[in-house]
Amino acid sequence: MKNTQKPSGMPIHRYRPYHEQFPTDLPDRSWPSKVIDAAPMWCAVDLRDGNQALIDPMSPERKRIMFDLLVRMGYKQIEVGFPSASQTDFDFVRQLIEEDLIPDDVVIQVLTQAREELIARTFESIRGAKQAIVHLYNSTSILQRDVVFRTDKQGIIDIALNGARWCKQYEQTVPGTTVYYEYSPESYTGTELEFAAEICNQVMTVFVPTPERKVIINLPSTIEMATPNVYADSIEWMSRHLHHRENVILSLHPHNDRGTAIAAAELGYQAGADRIEGCLFGNGERTGNVDLVALGINLMTQGIDPQIDFSDLDEIRRTAEYCNQLRVHERSPWAGDLVYTAFSGSHQDAIKKGFEAMEAASKATGTPLEQMEWAVPYLPVDPKDLGRGYEAVVRVNSQSGKGGVAYLLKADHKLDLPRRLQIEFSGVVQQKTDAEGGEVTSEEIWSIFRDEYLPAPQNHPDDKWGRYELLSTRTASDMTGSVTLELRMRIGDDVEEAQGVGNGPIAAFLGVMAEQGHEVRLYDYVEHTMSEGGDALAAAYVELQVGDKRLWGVGIDGDISTASLKAVVSAVNRAVRTEQDTEQEQLVGV
Amino acid sequence: MKNTQKPSGMPIHRYRPYHEQFPTDLPDRSWPSKVIDAAPMWCAVDLRDGNQALIDPMSPERKRIMFDLLVRMGYKQIEVGFPSASQTDFDFVRQLIEEDLIPDDVVIQVLTQAREELIARTFESIRGAKQAIVHLYNSTSILQRDVVFRTDKQGIIDIALNGARWCKQYEQTVPGTTVYYEYSPESYTGTELEFAAEICNQVMTVFVPTPERKVIINLPSTIEMATPNVYADSIEWMSRHLHHRENVILSLHPHNDRGTAIAAAELGYQAGADRIEGCLFGNGERTGNVDLVALGINLMTQGIDPQIDFSDLDEIRRTAEYCNQLRVHERSPWAGDLVYTAFSGSHQDAIKKGFEAMEAASKATGTPLEQMEWAVPYLPVDPKDLGRGYEAVVRVNSQSGKGGVAYLLKADHKLDLPRRLQIEFSGVVQQKTDAEGGEVTSEEIWSIFRDEYLPAPQNHPDDKWGRYELLSTRTASDMTGSVTLELRMRIGDDVEEAQGVGNGPIAAFLGVMAEQGHEVRLYDYVEHTMSEGGDALAAAYVELQVGDKRLWGVGIDGDISTASLKAVVSAVNRAVRTEQDTEQEQLVGV
Repeated sequence: MKNTQKPSGMPIHRYRPYHEQFPTDLPDRSWPSKVIDAAPMWCAVDLRDGNQALIDPMSPERKRIMFDLLVRMGYKQIEVGFPSASQTDFDFVRQLIEEDLIPDDVVIQVLTQAREELIARTFESIRGAKQAIVHLYNSTSILQRDVVFRTDKQGIIDIALNGARWCKQYEQTVPGTTVYYEYSPESYTGTELEFAAEICNQVMTVFVPTPERKVIINLPSTIEMATPNVYADSIEWMSRHLHHRENVILSLHPHNDRGTAIAAAELGYQAGADRIEGCLFGNGERTGNVDLVALGINLMTQGIDPQIDFSDLDEIRRTAEYCNQLRVHERSPWAGDLVYTAFSGSHQDAIKKGFEAMEAASKATGTPLEQMEWAVPYLPVDPKDLGRGYEAVVRVNSQSGKGGVAYLLKADHKLDLPRRLQIEFSGVVQQKTDAEGGEVTSEEIWSIFRDEYLPAPQNHPDDKWGRYELLSTRTASDMTGSVTLELRMRIGDDVEEAQGVGNGPIAAFLGVMAEQGHEVRLYDYVEHTMSEGGDALAAAYVELQVGDKRLWGVGIDGDISTASLKAVVSAVNRAVRTEQDTEQEQLVGV
Repeated sequence: MKNTQKPSGMPIHRYRPYHEQFPTDLPDRSWPSKVIDAAPMWCAVDLRDGNQALIDPMSPERKRIMFDLLVRMGYKQIEVGFPSASQTDFDFVRQLIEEDLIPDDVVIQVLTQAREELIARTFESIRGAKQAIVHLYNSTSILQRDVVFRTDKQGIIDIALNGARWCKQYEQTVPGTTVYYEYSPESYTGTELEFAAEICNQVMTVFVPTPERKVIINLPSTIEMATPNVYADSIEWMSRHLHHRENVILSLHPHNDRGTAIAAAELGYQAGADRIEGCLFGNGERTGNVDLVALGINLMTQGIDPQIDFSDLDEIRRTAEYCNQLRVHERSPWAGDLVYTAFSGSHQDAIKKGFEAMEAASKATGTPLEQMEWAVPYLPVDPKDLGRGYEAVVRVNSQSGKGGVAYLLKADHKLDLPRRLQIEFSGVVQQKTDAEGGEVTSEEIWSIFRDEYLPAPQNHPDDKWGRYELLSTRTASDMTGSVTLELRMRIGDDVEEAQGVGNGPIAAFLGVMAEQGHEVRLYDYVEHTMSEGGDALAAAYVELQVGDKRLWGVGIDGDISTASLKAVVSAVNRAVRTEQDTEQEQLVGV
């Protein structure tokens, strides 16, 4: 078999191999034979590096929620901001201190550039804290020396040394606070190793690490520029060349430009680092900081205590999504929506057999199932250990070879179901077909959907679908915020007229339904046109609480307002139907 | 500084370290010193492993679009399905062959289990193809041997050998097709290395690799269970222990359970592999297959031709998102929305200086800018080389310390702007404030938003906002699909009555606007309630084409239908305003 791949024309002449610019010679490297056997010291930088990279930076309220989450999970070092660069960050640090929100065993960390006024302001921000890490950085890369600072190596060392000296000087202004230091040669991965070691060692002539007050030397892959083994080599090299190594906490701060930040953190840790800075779910500049959730749970799967509590991963995820206003991807390690799903029949079968074998062994040995060693194919962890569940997802293909349920409804019927409704309806399909995967016609799916959510087609023999049916509506709005809704409606076998007033037609209609004895609350409401252009039909989806039931309704109409009323009717009719089913079951004693 | 991290209580006793179960002894490993200098042989498995993991499997149309994309990008080996397991896959393979859609230098690959009837069917599917790779697999892991197949090593070897023999037998049924073979010991990462080597070598006694017909031995991390250096060790070990190594194409198939698939592929390739199987943007089972886009562009950044064309990455992404019906995450390597944005002032400044230095050097040397070696801080590639742009995103914080523009509108005014409208409005804010980042009050942002999109508050001296203003509406629907809209509207200084008919109020209203000389097309329409409960206000957002302008309008009302009409008015008024501005500019000769 010949390799027929051809030159791509991509402008590769503009990029130089990393090893030509930054050679590392470490033939006696030891990290590839090391095995991780304990958690590193963690530092969560969600409130600084993570927050700095958000479209919408966190409000004080969201910052507070993130801080509390990190503390609750078990992080003991938390970078809380860049107080000299942002009033918001400054105020947040003050709030934490003044409202006494920092547990005794937690150290806050604040970032500063090596400029006197910024350092003064930084120390002002931490006044009154029991302890704090002051994190000093300056950029050391060849590129930044050339184009940004336009200075030589000595000039860059002077910036760092002056910064360190100002730190020691302003430390006097916070006598009640134990100050620890962290120094980062920023853009480390673009810096010659010899120079990185030199500047770190120079800074330590000022910070003077001792066993009681170790200094953190943080080596960021500000830009991830090479394969992770190269970063690990550089960390092992640095670990050998840093002075006072026994009193240095060697820290990693991997970014994910090449998609290998998790590997860089793990291999760098094998190479001798003591500490890792990162963010939950890999938030952070560009492609993100290293993902602390993946790193921690990776440890757990090796029988190593991450010293962080991931037992309610969904709650952690929801909170982070709220604070960052960024979604965690469906395939994000350990946390994504699709991580514990199995679509293929052979996977589902193997998983089933794995569960059965564990149950049998549990019975045979008398060990409770949740204490048994985990051994199920295709599921590297027990989802329950993370507060998740395993889902065998029945994929329904139509016989025409088109896609699954949600896709078919969209492609053939222009209905774009909200995710939770997709899940609800998948359950309905499974009940009705009792299919273990396999194929169903598009017509069958549509027929199940229509039976469940939509009134029967007009002039259909079975057209008295559900208890309620809208016959006509008139709405009037006078632009003052009040809407009058008049309607004719079939209720059972009768036709009635009704009227409601509200600030919108749905409100007015919920009033009408209340008079019929249905206490209804609206939870979610989604609406879309069913094609481009103004003459399209609209689909409305409502998630209602009807009595003690939470369920969806669907309405379709040319009038968007009518569609939403029909959706309410759909949900109420479904609620009435399940009630009747339950009553019948009770009557026959099921 | 003491490490105050505490035991987490996570059930680590349920998990055994990988190295205790699968020790690899390779003290003389050579891969850590290797540097990648050429692209591997690629195999794209989007249509099989990727498709298999979708909520909505691809329709034939979407499969066809994905196949064409992969061919266009330059992939020469494409796994197109599991034809014996799925009629849809079978039909798709037949379509590719019968409609002659496979270029001569592209080989399709089909997966099969080691069962006779499946192998027969597999060969039936490729009949008539010029060439094809038949990919045979069976599961070899300790766990699957124990709980799924309940057989010993010899039993597993027999499954593989029988499969290989059936392949050779049924190969006779496709005399016109050159058949290549691939064998995968599935769940390889859960298999003892000695046994993995043995079964592969046994299979090769049947497939008999030659220089002309090499055999692909594919070693999948079906589940990623250890750090990527361990996978690399195992690949180097296997590479030393496979027979006929010179005629074996050693292939990797990394999954991403631990988030280190990209690293595993790169280190495994350094360790002696020849070929990598993966999916665009890391689609695939659970956390996905390895991301082919990241792997390819990572090569480009080292001056190595990936032999794949990534020059229009946005188009590749849109196509993959359409086919997979899964979004690429904002922080996905090289491709995410946020990858080429810089939020922080110091990053923006350094980037600006980098651009300036490149321009100066370009002038000085006479080298065109786009041919210059790329050297800009915080941007590891020139986004233009991938068809992208760099965005310096001005983050506007309010002085109250709350978040940015979109967040403030949501938090303070319950307006949840669609993404494209967020971007449009950010531009408006930047124009009005001329701010380089920094802080603006929430009130200022709201005032800019209101001025731009909403009518002035009633009884405000400036309440004749825009050319059009709705005064009252009446809609009537008789449930037959036709809606009558009667309205009173201010047009300039006059009040007029108008009437329209359509299948919905927006359609009816677009008719009214057409009579006013505005050719309007609806592109996007989003609507949401502004709080829970039925008595809430609704916000409607419309993206319209008005003449040659594409722009958004916003409407707020208790009546959802009225809100959407107001949104149309908002967009049309904005279009009229820009027209007037342009005319004025032309008058004064700007």
